Amino acid sequence: MAHDSALQLKALRDAFQNTKTELLAELETLLRFQSISLDPTHREDINDCANWIVQFLRDAGIAAELWQAGGNPTVFAQIQSGPEKPTLLLYGHYDVQPAERLDEWQSPPFEPTIRDGEIYARGAFDNKGQLFYVIAALRHLVGHCETLPINVKLVIEGEEETRSHSLHELVTTKRAELSADYLAVVDAGMLDIAHPSVTLGVRGIVSMDVAVHGPIVDLHSGSHGGVVVNPIHALAKIIAGLHDDEGRVTVPHFYDDVHELSEEEKRVIDFSVDESWYESQFRTKLLGGERNYSALERAWTRPTIEVNGIVAGYNGPNIMGVIPAVARAKISCRLVPDQSPERIASLVAAQIESLTPPGVRCEITHSADSGPAVRADHRSAIVRAMAQACEDVFEKPCRFLLEGGSVPITAPLVASSGAEPVLFGLGLPTDNMHGPNEHFGIDRLELGFLIICRLIANLSRNR
Amino acid sequence: MAHDSALQLKALRDAFQNTKTELLAELETLLRFQSISLDPTHREDINDCANWIVQFLRDAGIAAELWQAGGNPTVFAQIQSGPEKPTLLLYGHYDVQPAERLDEWQSPPFEPTIRDGEIYARGAFDNKGQLFYVIAALRHLVGHCETLPINVKLVIEGEEETRSHSLHELVTTKRAELSADYLAVVDAGMLDIAHPSVTLGVRGIVSMDVAVHGPIVDLHSGSHGGVVVNPIHALAKIIAGLHDDEGRVTVPHFYDDVHELSEEEKRVIDFSVDESWYESQFRTKLLGGERNYSALERAWTRPTIEVNGIVAGYNGPNIMGVIPAVARAKISCRLVPDQSPERIASLVAAQIESLTPPGVRCEITHSADSGPAVRADHRSAIVRAMAQACEDVFEKPCRFLLEGGSVPITAPLVASSGAEPVLFGLGLPTDNMHGPNEHFGIDRLELGFLIICRLIANLSRNR
Repeated sequence: MAHDSALQLKALRDAFQNTKTELLAELETLLRFQSISLDPTHREDINDCANWIVQFLRDAGIAAELWQAGGNPTVFAQIQSGPEKPTLLLYGHYDVQPAERLDEWQSPPFEPTIRDGEIYARGAFDNKGQLFYVIAALRHLVGHCETLPINVKLVIEGEEETRSHSLHELVTTKRAELSADYLAVVDAGMLDIAHPSVTLGVRGIVSMDVAVHGPIVDLHSGSHGGVVVNPIHALAKIIAGLHDDEGRVTVPHFYDDVHELSEEEKRVIDFSVDESWYESQFRTKLLGGERNYSALERAWTRPTIEVNGIVAGYNGPNIMGVIPAVARAKISCRLVPDQSPERIASLVAAQIESLTPPGVRCEITHSADSGPAVRADHRSAIVRAMAQACEDVFEKPCRFLLEGGSVPITAPLVASSGAEPVLFGLGLPTDNMHGPNEHFGIDRLELGFLIICRLIANLSRNR
Repeated sequence: MAHDSALQLKALRDAFQNTKTELLAELETLLRFQSISLDPTHREDINDCANWIVQFLRDAGIAAELWQAGGNPTVFAQIQSGPEKPTLLLYGHYDVQPAERLDEWQSPPFEPTIRDGEIYARGAFDNKGQLFYVIAALRHLVGHCETLPINVKLVIEGEEETRSHSLHELVTTKRAELSADYLAVVDAGMLDIAHPSVTLGVRGIVSMDVAVHGPIVDLHSGSHGGVVVNPIHALAKIIAGLHDDEGRVTVPHFYDDVHELSEEEKRVIDFSVDESWYESQFRTKLLGGERNYSALERAWTRPTIEVNGIVAGYNGPNIMGVIPAVARAKISCRLVPDQSPERIASLVAAQIESLTPPGVRCEITHSADSGPAVRADHRSAIVRAMAQACEDVFEKPCRFLLEGGSVPITAPLVASSGAEPVLFGLGLPTDNMHGPNEHFGIDRLELGFLIICRLIANLSRNR
């Protein structure tokens, strides 16, 4: 069969529907692996899961192997159609978050269960459901096209939830294997099912731990209160000093490399969000961050400093009169394009030092896990092909979004592959990613299957 | 024997030395009771300990009973010498702190062990060692004086470490029994063994828990960072706003009822402390509190606000990008004479409310455990008698101290008994009160025994 007819939407829909029972059974198998990368006791489950994916791909006639780089194995596969054709690199991950708060799960997290058209399991959305429609689509295409219209590479890591240490190494050592024209990171979501969307960017991240040291031991706040500097007060002063009353970050030079969106970007990116929905969903006002930007502009296009954790002293029942020896906070910055994680880390550290009052000492530990922002060009071939694939399948206009969160491996993958990037995914905010009762719609499995197939068709045509 | 000769120092020293072996054995018995009031599983140990004290007193010929008021029993005893004579009320407590960090104890906390002239056990200093020299002194006097020169009452509670709930009730219901001319709270310490001292006052205390509520659930700091108000930032702003750059509390009217010491108080209270010793001991500069007062003036005579605990968000290894739904802090104020705990609590709460930024909600929970400051008059009979007793025994000038900490039951005891108060004790900063390897010097047992006996002699004479 020529690839053109196999890639028609009608044929793809029939193919999915005709094999739906088998596809769901395979997805359930994939979801049963307890591939929890945060928990070293699941190392064997991790390996079993990676091997199952390799075998799935090989059974489909796709060359697949495992890359080892000290941590969990990375699945690498490729479909070679010809050196003259462009190459698409697809990214996903097979590791999952732990399944905590077990009493809140309506069905066990590693026993996939279908209720009301949704499949419930840890990883159903993030990222096994999504990687499954990718590999199912590739199998279908390989099985039904004489040759694919483009070359396809697939990298599926096992450490996304634990900072991608192996893949960070592999982007250097496997540069040739990862080289591509287009990169689709299939680990994103959409705001609602009614609006097909493509994600044009993620913010970068850099983070640090701050410890404010005062007396060498905890002191009694009666005997010593008012005598020594309380490290909690000092830390509060530091944190309070990181933003001004307008919500703007006070760190000198923090905004130096931040650029406003172009008028065209402002036009094509969909910043409309129902703020009242947002407020009712989380029962909070959207009053954080810089005054002069809308909520989504702040989340998507502006850098931030957020304190993610703080702890010091006594926090049990009643009261214990203590001035703690140390107060600690965990701070992360979200970055926008052209901000260097290293530069921002050192600017923020300098500001923290300068805000530290006399009488205490500040210790800053930079986290090794950081990455710059990625912003795709909405005019690029991959973005246009992906948007077109969404419109083909949804039969509705596709909108362009950004994402405030970070996928820190994206920038290294872009750099290593040399590819134009896009982010895509069909997860919804209501899918309980990382929480109890994570789920993913079976209708979205089909949509994903169709979109990946159409993406490949469109990429050959767009070129 | 007439009481005058029995109360001579030489006779008292001989009496202690001649019975030292038995005294130590009795103290060891007292220290073996695991009378941990914080732990309800030790209720029987608590009762056994209270009963042992009652029996000790009765065996000495002293009328003793247990008062019940819902919680742990309170030992009450009295020695009646005649209605025309003045009455001294002595206060102590038999409950102890839990003995945590067991691996750091060189000998088990409830197996008293003597090393280098110090007795090691939980409660050795706080407060069993001290209450023991009191009851040993009373037994000696009753055994060797025909009649005591004054009436003596003794109240020993079992809930000092858990906020004295029963005694707070008993000061109302047992007002007649507690009425006295003089009150000696034997639960204090000295700065060093070379300088006998009497404590003229304690600061009061009032405390509250503060919770800053933002979104109804924890939010992802990537997706939502810069959009909503981070409760940690809001709480930091509140805490930072409680003091100005001069270390002064910013709460309006906070200092309204604070009076400077009189010139005479400044002269008689010993504010000399070796600040370099303090700094080397705790490896911290004494830069907390108000700029215009010395370290001990700040600790003893100025009110404070200290944050004793703070917790929010994620504080484990690495980083978790969370904007927490709530951030919590525990705040206590130390008060000086004439400051009302209730008024200060409501002033501080109002300031916290006014510092709370839009977009979050502040919830303040006042602690029921509070008490005003107590300041003794250095010219009063009880203070003069206690100071003279110290000078009799130490053969050195006695100095007057204040204490920055709080003994919240002191003010209610003063109010109920109608007595002039003083605080006294022989604990040292190095005794590890509340920590592992708590200890108390056997030499100080003797000093305490002598001082209590001499106090009673001096009170009859001073009147």
